[in-house]
Amino acid sequence: MDRRSFILKAGTAGIGAAASAGLAAPALAQPAKTTVWRLASAFPETLDTIHGGAVDLARFVSEASGGEFTIEILPQGDPAKSVLDVVAAGEAELCHTAPQDHVNRDATFALAGAVPFMLNARGLQAWLYQGGGIDKLNGFFSRQGLVYLPGGNTGTQMGGWFRREMTATQDFRGLKMRITGLGADVMRRLGVETLPIPGAGIKAALQGGSIDAAEWIGPADDEVLGLLSVAPYYYYPGWWEGSLAPAFLISKPAHEALSPVHRSLLATAARAASVEMLAKYDARNPAALRRLVEAGAELRPFPQDILNAAFDAAQAIYAELRGANAPFREIYDSLASFRNETFLYAQVAEYTFDTFMMIKQREGALTVKG
Amino acid sequence: MDRRSFILKAGTAGIGAAASAGLAAPALAQPAKTTVWRLASAFPETLDTIHGGAVDLARFVSEASGGEFTIEILPQGDPAKSVLDVVAAGEAELCHTAPQDHVNRDATFALAGAVPFMLNARGLQAWLYQGGGIDKLNGFFSRQGLVYLPGGNTGTQMGGWFRREMTATQDFRGLKMRITGLGADVMRRLGVETLPIPGAGIKAALQGGSIDAAEWIGPADDEVLGLLSVAPYYYYPGWWEGSLAPAFLISKPAHEALSPVHRSLLATAARAASVEMLAKYDARNPAALRRLVEAGAELRPFPQDILNAAFDAAQAIYAELRGANAPFREIYDSLASFRNETFLYAQVAEYTFDTFMMIKQREGALTVKG
Repeated sequence: MDRRSFILKAGTAGIGAAASAGLAAPALAQPAKTTVWRLASAFPETLDTIHGGAVDLARFVSEASGGEFTIEILPQGDPAKSVLDVVAAGEAELCHTAPQDHVNRDATFALAGAVPFMLNARGLQAWLYQGGGIDKLNGFFSRQGLVYLPGGNTGTQMGGWFRREMTATQDFRGLKMRITGLGADVMRRLGVETLPIPGAGIKAALQGGSIDAAEWIGPADDEVLGLLSVAPYYYYPGWWEGSLAPAFLISKPAHEALSPVHRSLLATAARAASVEMLAKYDARNPAALRRLVEAGAELRPFPQDILNAAFDAAQAIYAELRGANAPFREIYDSLASFRNETFLYAQVAEYTFDTFMMIKQREGALTVKG
Repeated sequence: MDRRSFILKAGTAGIGAAASAGLAAPALAQPAKTTVWRLASAFPETLDTIHGGAVDLARFVSEASGGEFTIEILPQGDPAKSVLDVVAAGEAELCHTAPQDHVNRDATFALAGAVPFMLNARGLQAWLYQGGGIDKLNGFFSRQGLVYLPGGNTGTQMGGWFRREMTATQDFRGLKMRITGLGADVMRRLGVETLPIPGAGIKAALQGGSIDAAEWIGPADDEVLGLLSVAPYYYYPGWWEGSLAPAFLISKPAHEALSPVHRSLLATAARAASVEMLAKYDARNPAALRRLVEAGAELRPFPQDILNAAFDAAQAIYAELRGANAPFREIYDSLASFRNETFLYAQVAEYTFDTFMMIKQREGALTVKG
């Protein structure tokens, strides 16, 4: 269809009535009715990786609807005001956020985003798109007046920036760390004091000494925040975010008012935006990590006993939450069963191929010569 | 927009003329002009994994255009007739195929699909969507009268089914194996006789003894073909397909005739179909592998010396192709440089997280209890 066509907003009976009354030219000359939505993003505009997920969604929806359905991204508001409140207040039809940042409302939010020691990006996407994950999460979000669509993935995150080396589990006792979501709960069991500082305030907090450590995302985004100069020890892996799927959380009434065609386009565009975000991280992280190391970052793996202590603390938290929160239990159990099979299968072809290729990378055999 | 609206195919001037002549009801009652495309799939309809990529594309495009743009999937034709010939003959506007199956036209085709010892699924998607891969490939495909869009991913494939154990490189000499693409070239250097048998004929060929081994895809699809009963040794990894991205290859004139709105929808829907395919493989492969092993499959990793011999043979082939084929060289070099960085970076957070989780899986610590 030519999108510049003029649309007669009436059925056949209406047309007859209009014709007999004399055709109303101004009504006919109106452009197609457009739907304009507003999106509140929880992510800084300076990060075109994670913030870019919303930009891609808006672009795909607008282009593929010929401008009939547009999504305007609101300028970043008060960082203390949750984007969920912006949607609840009717100031935006949807938001783009890291669901685990809203665990103060209900721990179940975290299950849509990042869960300590849970799935990697491929596993999480498989659970969401083909393992019933989206439907299960919507059972929960529906009761919050929201509709959920996955909104990207960061891949496995880094373990964050520390002002000093962490060699044993007891080094965590008394540490002050910027970390959010269920990962913060695990850290507290290890004796850490946790602070949910927004991205833009992290560097100053490290500089001023009000925190000793901070996790953000991974090399591409961490480089933008400039944390290296204030906390040079860069740990991995971010076991609390084996992958993080940001979410598009949509006002349920707004979603219901959308035509089925635009609802379908929105879901298709969200899938497409997810592909682009993970690809962006995977394309940019390698060079960003190289630059960070060249600039002095001290790259360190978390010692195995720290990982084990954190894993055990996480399991204790899950046991409590499963006992106290039925929706959490239902969704957690689905994720966790899927995880067990994912890591069983991934040991076969995927891991063996990757391991062989990493050996070749270390041997220098992957460098293109000549 | 309500798709049942009636659309007046005229500008304001036309409306004025129609009104003064008396409103022409039949013209007003015409539905919106629709674009109907035909797609030829190279994949058996019985495999709703890989064949499903085209089904998803068609569904996303049709739903999000309100039926204005539909893609009809043609019934599987003569297996000996390439889907590229179907497109060239104007019998379909596009096809869905494994590009490496067309290396007889030009080895560069393989670079859009599966390349021995190249990228895993995440690395390949990062190169395609954010590493300039799609544009580079379109530089080549444009000269073939085609437009390229990625059309899914299978993940790392299995190394296929063998009638006997393969313990050393010399076991490959004289072996008759069903394998296609550049992987077949590598196998021939190891002394294998290769045959490009279509999926539907593989079981009979193994049964009749005309081949000793066959690779297809991975557990979910291989189970459907029923290869276990005729060749019980199931090897991994499929180093010739660290990941396989099927392609949507579109007739260039048909693509140019599409409106910009539908062109954008097609690209967005192809991204969405890609997410669904990889998720489908990742969701189904674990249970399928379990069933195959329970039914008697003898799971075996390729010995390291076989992997090394195949890697060296592949590098020799690439050196020759890079010398003889400039477009191959340009695209191969881009892929290979990206690969080196991908496997360097993946050793940090991704691999460490996966390894820890696999250890926990083996310990039984991931099983949900209670």
